[in-house]
Amino acid sequence: MARLTLSPDGRRSVIATAHRIADAARRETLAHFRSPTLTVESKLASGFDPVTAADRAAEAAMRAILAQERPDDAIFGEEMGRSAGTSGLTWVLDPIDGTRAYMSGTPTWGVLIALSDGDGPFLGVIDQPFIGERFVGGLGLAEVRGPQGRQQLATRPPRPLSDAVLFTTFPEVGTPEEGAAFRRVSAHARLTRYGMDCYAYALLAAGQIDLVIEAGLSAYDIQAPIAVIEAAGGIVTDWQGGPAHAGGRAIAAANPAVHAEALALLAG
Amino acid sequence: MARLTLSPDGRRSVIATAHRIADAARRETLAHFRSPTLTVESKLASGFDPVTAADRAAEAAMRAILAQERPDDAIFGEEMGRSAGTSGLTWVLDPIDGTRAYMSGTPTWGVLIALSDGDGPFLGVIDQPFIGERFVGGLGLAEVRGPQGRQQLATRPPRPLSDAVLFTTFPEVGTPEEGAAFRRVSAHARLTRYGMDCYAYALLAAGQIDLVIEAGLSAYDIQAPIAVIEAAGGIVTDWQGGPAHAGGRAIAAANPAVHAEALALLAG
Repeated sequence: MARLTLSPDGRRSVIATAHRIADAARRETLAHFRSPTLTVESKLASGFDPVTAADRAAEAAMRAILAQERPDDAIFGEEMGRSAGTSGLTWVLDPIDGTRAYMSGTPTWGVLIALSDGDGPFLGVIDQPFIGERFVGGLGLAEVRGPQGRQQLATRPPRPLSDAVLFTTFPEVGTPEEGAAFRRVSAHARLTRYGMDCYAYALLAAGQIDLVIEAGLSAYDIQAPIAVIEAAGGIVTDWQGGPAHAGGRAIAAANPAVHAEALALLAG
Repeated sequence: MARLTLSPDGRRSVIATAHRIADAARRETLAHFRSPTLTVESKLASGFDPVTAADRAAEAAMRAILAQERPDDAIFGEEMGRSAGTSGLTWVLDPIDGTRAYMSGTPTWGVLIALSDGDGPFLGVIDQPFIGERFVGGLGLAEVRGPQGRQQLATRPPRPLSDAVLFTTFPEVGTPEEGAAFRRVSAHARLTRYGMDCYAYALLAAGQIDLVIEAGLSAYDIQAPIAVIEAAGGIVTDWQGGPAHAGGRAIAAANPAVHAEALALLAG
């Protein structure tokens, strides 16, 4: 496991690099946010998946820093795919998670950065450039810095699902079966909210909500949330309770009790 | 019409008062936001309508300023109801619009302030304390101040509904009939997003989106958005094209063309 080979200096160094690439992505994404000249292209002729100049510029800026500071690490980015490495470590980058939010001026999109080895992510950053909030978890850290200063991240203690707050991004969630499974959980939760993209995982790590359930994810959508939430005391798995870091269906929970209650309902 | 009796000095004075009460509400609401000790009461035994200490403290702080600076104006607040006045002007206050967002730590709730006469609101403030954004419209102003500085508000030029972005807060919208009417519009829009409360109206005023459609509103939910959006060049009506300032069903549109296209679909 490559993470075990990191010395204390090595840990500090990768955390510093993570902050620098988050800073670079913040600059590039903010430069275009709410710009009237924002140009939208469509990656999928059939759908609405806008990729902006900001998305590409942000990933390029992150990769340029990694090429200098971490030349032996692999990179897997949403925009530019995979670059091989030799260290056993991979930087997993989503320059703009929540492109639909970004394109509509909504401030809850984010930059996602994870550092992974063969066992999954062990350092994660969920950065919110417009609000100026950065959630970091892993390698001994579980903190947010933002408008309210610097605070420790800690997930909520157990409460019954009937008192729990559940988030997902799109009401349809995924396939019709995935949507039906989600609604079985939602019907038992106190409150269900939509539209937050990666910000929902940040709220879970910050102890504000109990559950996030999504489907159709890519690895770069979920790896940073996994690291941040685990560092804050929460749990992230797929809908069968297995690892979620490859993407697909994910359930993030504040604690094992509410995780188990929701998992049973997802199973039908 | 009471607004016509305002001198240039009178206009500057009410704008300054609006900023001061927004500042006061910002302090009170932020003092409790994401607090682990936030206490939730339920106004409706059957539903989930949390009212917090912040909600009440914010309205009390706003009323204290109005009692000093505008003793002749009436007040209509979400928390404390109606206080009579003699000037023909009414301050319409929603100390926390989006209590569900507030309770779940989501930064897109807001403080809503409108100044109205018998014809409806003519000055509005949509304030977002956590992000530090304030949208103001009316009496010659149409501007936002926030992380990106001070900018003029202007709604989008016409584009076909098939290219338009539509927001509402809850996927169910309102009654089953209201939900069905909404989905007739949504089916023709390019993108539908959820969960933003008053922030959706601010995005419309800022030229980021094309439509907001909601139902079941109170007067204090919609009066500030009306003033801000009209000042930015947009249009807000009920679903029949009549005045929306009494609450109920509202459609906010960036321009008359997309308003007409959506209104026809709402009618069935």
